[in-house]
Amino acid sequence: MEIFYAYEVEGGIARLDAEESGHCVRVLRHRAGDEISVIDGLGSMYRCRLSDDSPKGASAEVLEAFPRWGSHPYHLTVACCPTKNNERFEWFVEKATEVGVDRIVPVIGERSERKVYKTDRAARIALSATKQSLKAHIPVIDEPLSVRAFIDSTDKPWNDDNGRHARPDRASATLKLIAYCFEDDTHPRISIKDALSCHFDRAERVEKSVIILIGPEGDFSPEEARHALEAGFIPVHLGTSRLRTETAAVTAAEAVYFHFL
Amino acid sequence: MEIFYAYEVEGGIARLDAEESGHCVRVLRHRAGDEISVIDGLGSMYRCRLSDDSPKGASAEVLEAFPRWGSHPYHLTVACCPTKNNERFEWFVEKATEVGVDRIVPVIGERSERKVYKTDRAARIALSATKQSLKAHIPVIDEPLSVRAFIDSTDKPWNDDNGRHARPDRASATLKLIAYCFEDDTHPRISIKDALSCHFDRAERVEKSVIILIGPEGDFSPEEARHALEAGFIPVHLGTSRLRTETAAVTAAEAVYFHFL
Repeated sequence: MEIFYAYEVEGGIARLDAEESGHCVRVLRHRAGDEISVIDGLGSMYRCRLSDDSPKGASAEVLEAFPRWGSHPYHLTVACCPTKNNERFEWFVEKATEVGVDRIVPVIGERSERKVYKTDRAARIALSATKQSLKAHIPVIDEPLSVRAFIDSTDKPWNDDNGRHARPDRASATLKLIAYCFEDDTHPRISIKDALSCHFDRAERVEKSVIILIGPEGDFSPEEARHALEAGFIPVHLGTSRLRTETAAVTAAEAVYFHFL
Repeated sequence: MEIFYAYEVEGGIARLDAEESGHCVRVLRHRAGDEISVIDGLGSMYRCRLSDDSPKGASAEVLEAFPRWGSHPYHLTVACCPTKNNERFEWFVEKATEVGVDRIVPVIGERSERKVYKTDRAARIALSATKQSLKAHIPVIDEPLSVRAFIDSTDKPWNDDNGRHARPDRASATLKLIAYCFEDDTHPRISIKDALSCHFDRAERVEKSVIILIGPEGDFSPEEARHALEAGFIPVHLGTSRLRTETAAVTAAEAVYFHFL
């Protein structure tokens, strides 16, 4: 099944950009009148009839809309430090998109070897994997920001007044997890599987929203990890295996996928 | 932590081959008397003292043995059709090794585009990923064989006499799963998560052994799938996402990993 991405769907017309138009018209030789499948990247798929087969700006008339096409029953943000080797991070973007992720945030940690990350390639990979895996929602790839700035951008719904103890009992909040091991054992970790079960099994009506924070090859600094805890993140482990950064990020996405399966 | 692979550990002496010796002595400049960590690839890690620092055939005296080092509490065989793009299959080998797999069988299906597969690169990747993820057991990479031959090589412990119905109630048997959708709906699938729970949750003393069979890009032929069912394989799905072959293989390994977490 061939899927095209429309940058705009309005008034019953789906518009393809130059790249998608070229692929549709030049490469696959679709002509006006052909039926094509179009996603808007926001969650809807449209069965369309190509009305303008211009190879630089094709458009198609919407025949039928399929909202939440290929969707998953949760909202997942994975904030992950880009790996030294770009391909490994891009691989994570592809695989997480296939499995199911809504937002990917490249975060730069104090110990990150890679301090700069350009999102354009990742965005292309996310689009391609979305189409390939028959989904209509393209994960949002944020511009990179520091681990601290990302933590500060999340709210603090589960903390008591002095901000020390995570209290995952306010069920409407997003579950915020950090994969980190405090070496001084002051914050014993639970497995990501148990963290998901504790939070989501007890309340049916909870908002099924998860944020997971994955550190760089050199791990978070203890200060970054403590900052995350103060912001309500729960320290988790991903099991007994020692995983590379990008494998940990995909494994976390798989844990959420299987929890809601 | 730097790990070296010994092709032989006998009489308290661990022997490294030319490649590992060169890495240990030439690259990392270890000298006789240095303490090094050695795995035998069969499940044991040894704390050793380098006794012969020859760069073509180093050996080390065993000081302490750690059996089942970095092991996982199950035995998993993933039989997967090699992808058209070799790198994608090799990526599966690396990631499954990190997460935990015991045996990888490249199987050639009737609809496989890739009919020939050489295992030497995959074996090197498995060794490297084993060391990187601090495990002592290197997954066995079988020589490729046909899907039918692989199915025939598994026993048939759960079939009734006419071989039609899978009966996963003989708890000592290996759980055999095939990721396949019968289009005629004659064999409704359950999720891999439910298949694992049904089989392993009811009996504590069951042998924790799983085989999972993943088809090529063009899927199994209906005849191959029926042959698998006759041999006691249970048809499963990996959830709602449509996954590439190599993503399906890793996702299946993750499902087993999380089940036993």
